[in-house]
Amino acid sequence: MVRKLVSTDIDDLAYGCAVLGTGGGGDPHIGKLMVKQVISDGKEINLYSVDEVDDKDWILPVAMMGAPVIMIEKLPSGTESVNAMNFFEHEMKKKISFISPIEAGGVNSTIPLFVGAMTNKRVVDGDGEGRAFPELQMVTYHLYDINASPIVMYDEKGNVNVVQAVNNIWGEKIARSVTIRFGGSAYISLYYCDGESYRKATIPGTIAKSIDIGQRVREAKKEGKDQFDALLDVAEAKHLFTGKIVDLERKVEKGFARGRITIDGTDEFSGRTASIDFQNENLILREEEKVIASVPDLITVIDSESSTPITTEHLRYGLRVKVIGIKCDSKWRTKKGLETVGPRYFGYDINYKPL
Amino acid sequence: MVRKLVSTDIDDLAYGCAVLGTGGGGDPHIGKLMVKQVISDGKEINLYSVDEVDDKDWILPVAMMGAPVIMIEKLPSGTESVNAMNFFEHEMKKKISFISPIEAGGVNSTIPLFVGAMTNKRVVDGDGEGRAFPELQMVTYHLYDINASPIVMYDEKGNVNVVQAVNNIWGEKIARSVTIRFGGSAYISLYYCDGESYRKATIPGTIAKSIDIGQRVREAKKEGKDQFDALLDVAEAKHLFTGKIVDLERKVEKGFARGRITIDGTDEFSGRTASIDFQNENLILREEEKVIASVPDLITVIDSESSTPITTEHLRYGLRVKVIGIKCDSKWRTKKGLETVGPRYFGYDINYKPL
Repeated sequence: MVRKLVSTDIDDLAYGCAVLGTGGGGDPHIGKLMVKQVISDGKEINLYSVDEVDDKDWILPVAMMGAPVIMIEKLPSGTESVNAMNFFEHEMKKKISFISPIEAGGVNSTIPLFVGAMTNKRVVDGDGEGRAFPELQMVTYHLYDINASPIVMYDEKGNVNVVQAVNNIWGEKIARSVTIRFGGSAYISLYYCDGESYRKATIPGTIAKSIDIGQRVREAKKEGKDQFDALLDVAEAKHLFTGKIVDLERKVEKGFARGRITIDGTDEFSGRTASIDFQNENLILREEEKVIASVPDLITVIDSESSTPITTEHLRYGLRVKVIGIKCDSKWRTKKGLETVGPRYFGYDINYKPL
Repeated sequence: MVRKLVSTDIDDLAYGCAVLGTGGGGDPHIGKLMVKQVISDGKEINLYSVDEVDDKDWILPVAMMGAPVIMIEKLPSGTESVNAMNFFEHEMKKKISFISPIEAGGVNSTIPLFVGAMTNKRVVDGDGEGRAFPELQMVTYHLYDINASPIVMYDEKGNVNVVQAVNNIWGEKIARSVTIRFGGSAYISLYYCDGESYRKATIPGTIAKSIDIGQRVREAKKEGKDQFDALLDVAEAKHLFTGKIVDLERKVEKGFARGRITIDGTDEFSGRTASIDFQNENLILREEEKVIASVPDLITVIDSESSTPITTEHLRYGLRVKVIGIKCDSKWRTKKGLETVGPRYFGYDINYKPL
């Protein structure tokens, strides 16, 4: 299936991918502006479903790497990612058939659309997470033994770095140190693979799902219905907490935005207190010491007033929020999946309890 | 001129290049063992003088990057540098005519000989420093606008990283962060250039000079003459201080071995106190506040008892030492040379006073 994306789709996508981005993946406003501009410039963006991929096609995921909070000050021009794609094709002598996203997120769902439009490449709607995660090996491709390397990295100054690591954990380590040196963010391409491997390892349809989420919530508003209810329904999400952010710790550490928010319950959660730990993405929701939800399930913070998802870099004291949880893709609930992105990997001494 | 190096030459070289390495460039014992092994395995090492290089030859310098103190614990197998050379030829599609050193030093003078022997490449005796310096842009090639990139980096685990930086300062920054991530040391190739540029920008004859230094000091010992006098004579060095190390500060910081030694004067320097600051290499020698010698001139610490040069990683409390100074190459005494490696670049608020 091929779907030509129009400007409203991008608005809807920006909303939906921020929901699935679980706080990370970049600011949806920045991502949206980049893509709407190229559409208004007359470029076409054609989104292909995963079943359009042939065994011998070559797929190249492109993304932004780093602490998303950096991007607010270091706006991408977009050409960084186009350069990464061109460098890849030229240096690796591989003709890329499809650009793809690596994860869901305000910027990381939209960069592939931008690169596709600028390079006349098809974009395929299958990514490696179905959500966002902070580290490079946290993708389903890693579970299927696809190599992240060569990892091609660009910065906005024109520096290029290519990592050819012995494994994906080392790929993450080396690329992270370069990202920090680049100033905190980098534009990367990685996990290139053939169509056969891609179809097995990918999570299909995250962009289409994001657009659906955005569209349903937008329509609810137009029809005077409750947007939050519409969101719960279309995203198959569970309402986990409501309250006001009363404490916020945040630091950029080792190239990640890390921190914790504390939420004092209101409405039906009045008298209760919850906290969310994050590392670019929201990792774990607790009430006092009790774990309510954790990675790899999706935890997203929604602005109570506007019903919009809030990325971790926009969390702030005093904000009234609702917290929702969404089941992760079944690929993450396997043994290797949980070893890669379960709470223990992030240093929490708890077992994963599926939502 | 072509000179076939024999095992004694390597002993002499190890001594002499440690003198010219001014404390850095790696442990001469490790470098010596690597090369003597390949000679005893029957490999030939032919050292070419710079005038043997044709305009259209391609020259590739190879080296170890990082804090030399790391290498004592993380012994190189030698194949890391061979891999860097092979990767370069394969990926960059350039047939390398000559391997060259980038600087003088116990390891960095010998690695090119090792790589030459292992890959059947000729080795040319022209490097970019005529001494050792801690950062990648501190080479005469930089003064002549030769690009350090692509910088190919290998570690002992098999990770590869290629930096294509917008300038040599960025090349240094990015490669340094990767070196730190690699565990503190990396094996690199950089500043590849054609023969015409190379002949203009290089400092010729540092290996031959190192062998001469080693040979003269060795012969002095055999003839029962004073080795230190022989060293001063053959290296055209000035005797700057004699004493005992009474204080030593050292840390590995941002990928460099940084520190300071304090020396209480003895013999004709009795009652006086000197200090040497180092960053991998010895940077500045002072008596109280008075600068006696500084970069880019060479400052080398010699063990008083054995008359052998001491690299910064082997400095220790209680050691009796003599400090010598040697004039740097005239390329360093230019305006751009001093901007690149003069005392002010290293953060000292003093003007360079030539030895």
